[in-house]
Amino acid sequence: MIVKASDPNFAARVADSFARQNAMGFIGARLARVEPGLVQIELPYRDELTQQHKFFHGGITTMIADSAGGYAGYSLFPATSSVLTVEFKISLLAPACGERLMATGRVIKPGRTLTICDLEVQAIKDGHSTAVLKGLQTLICLHDKADRAA
Amino acid sequence: MIVKASDPNFAARVADSFARQNAMGFIGARLARVEPGLVQIELPYRDELTQQHKFFHGGITTMIADSAGGYAGYSLFPATSSVLTVEFKISLLAPACGERLMATGRVIKPGRTLTICDLEVQAIKDGHSTAVLKGLQTLICLHDKADRAA
Amino acid sequence: MIVKASDPNFAARVADSFARQNAMGFIGARLARVEPGLVQIELPYRDELTQQHKFFHGGITTMIADSAGGYAGYSLFPATSSVLTVEFKISLLAPACGERLMATGRVIKPGRTLTICDLEVQAIKDGHSTAVLKGLQTLICLHDKADRAA
Amino acid sequence: MIVKASDPNFAARVADSFARQNAMGFIGARLARVEPGLVQIELPYRDELTQQHKFFHGGITTMIADSAGGYAGYSLFPATSSVLTVEFKISLLAPACGERLMATGRVIKPGRTLTICDLEVQAIKDGHSTAVLKGLQTLICLHDKADRAA
Repeated sequence: MIVKASDPNFAARVADSFARQNAMGFIGARLARVEPGLVQIELPYRDELTQQHKFFHGGITTMIADSAGGYAGYSLFPATSSVLTVEFKISLLAPACGERLMATGRVIKPGRTLTICDLEVQAIKDGHSTAVLKGLQTLICLHDKADRAA
Repeated sequence: MIVKASDPNFAARVADSFARQNAMGFIGARLARVEPGLVQIELPYRDELTQQHKFFHGGITTMIADSAGGYAGYSLFPATSSVLTVEFKISLLAPACGERLMATGRVIKPGRTLTICDLEVQAIKDGHSTAVLKGLQTLICLHDKADRAA
Repeated sequence: MIVKASDPNFAARVADSFARQNAMGFIGARLARVEPGLVQIELPYRDELTQQHKFFHGGITTMIADSAGGYAGYSLFPATSSVLTVEFKISLLAPACGERLMATGRVIKPGRTLTICDLEVQAIKDGHSTAVLKGLQTLICLHDKADRAA
Repeated sequence: MIVKASDPNFAARVADSFARQNAMGFIGARLARVEPGLVQIELPYRDELTQQHKFFHGGITTMIADSAGGYAGYSLFPATSSVLTVEFKISLLAPACGERLMATGRVIKPGRTLTICDLEVQAIKDGHSTAVLKGLQTLICLHDKADRAA
């Protein structure tokens, strides 16, 4: 789906909001790609991010998927709005094992109030990429409630 | 639902596995309660765990919910097994704002292969508790594959 | 949760809308209970409603759960509004085998725009009741868009 | 994803099981396409299948999506097995309004025990197709439990 951002400044707005998500910096995630309706977030492996079998914890994998979807939607929202996640469902397809994860959020249905995103996370190991998470997410646009307080 | 753990050592087994989930220690989560089919995980507020509006990040809230459900299921599994999350769906009911979160995972349908859990997270602020997350989760029991490698 | 309906005429409004859901009449479902934020729908067994193993088809079980949740939310909406299902997730806990099903939709988080419901279906067989479906549902309230066209 | 069916007779096996799903015949659904890991089900409009605004009922739309996914998985299962839906999550993207619906179930992760499918339903109106449902589904393969009793 080809979508257009109504705010020409969308990429800077997404980057600015991402920088204020402390949790993303804390785990070491970085914004890898920002296009209208599509955002990617990359996360290098660290021992601190694992579950008991030394894979990435499913909650960590979900965190970057949730943020990727949230910012994919936010890229299409008006400059004066905020985004909140309403809900999501994720299926963990395989153990998240690798040097890094790449999460992709993609708007599949934009809307004035609600936006639906497809979520996916790939684990990259020795240059080989495996899908480890697939999800669907619902976002709500809070109009006239800018993401950054004055 | 009253359930019985087949392994009398279930609480120590859960605590041992939790201690090896690096991601739980990294965010500062602790095991608050372990009963057969019911586990609670507590997470104090830290600036590092927030999204752009200074609430707990939805992914962090989800992380402790996922682990609470996983260990609720694991408490009922045989001693020689492991647990993996197959999928979950969560609804974020309200901004996760408070001094701490309390996640509860509860088995609603135990099974030999698949176990279904109800997930809930409360945010505690000034002694007042608000439901911020509700979810449903599917777990799989990996028989004869102990959680801790020899 | 104790909730109050803002429209004193809520029960008649729900019954009227239900009567216009042709699909409910087609499968033989009937409204069994309507309270503010809680609706039950009953469905007697018929051979036409089964899957290949002669249990109720999961889609049929889901249909009455979806409608029960939708009307639980709608019971709390203003008289001049409509309800639409945004999304739901359901877990099928056991084969839906019995003389009849009873679906319960219950509002767990009312809201001006979005309402979250808990869904459950019990199968009744020889007077014994078994939970066969658990779910979570998101509804949207369309304000100033009455359910029944003039 | 290119997948191969282990049972060369998969298409006949799917058609045979579909014919025994009474609920599919009852609503007027027919099998439109059966490939390894991909099944489509078509459903013409009938007044009996609608909700209160005369769109297809969301539960009906979900029913054919659930069956399409179930048979997409079943096409890859061994001849001596059965399929059960464990859970699914669906997002309703737009009112299901049209002369007919076309549901597509597609295996995105096959597995010995669990199989994950992507679900989609298009509504066709005046030759124009609109995505009305997106979903994710988990199936379980019951080995050595043939779908058709002897």
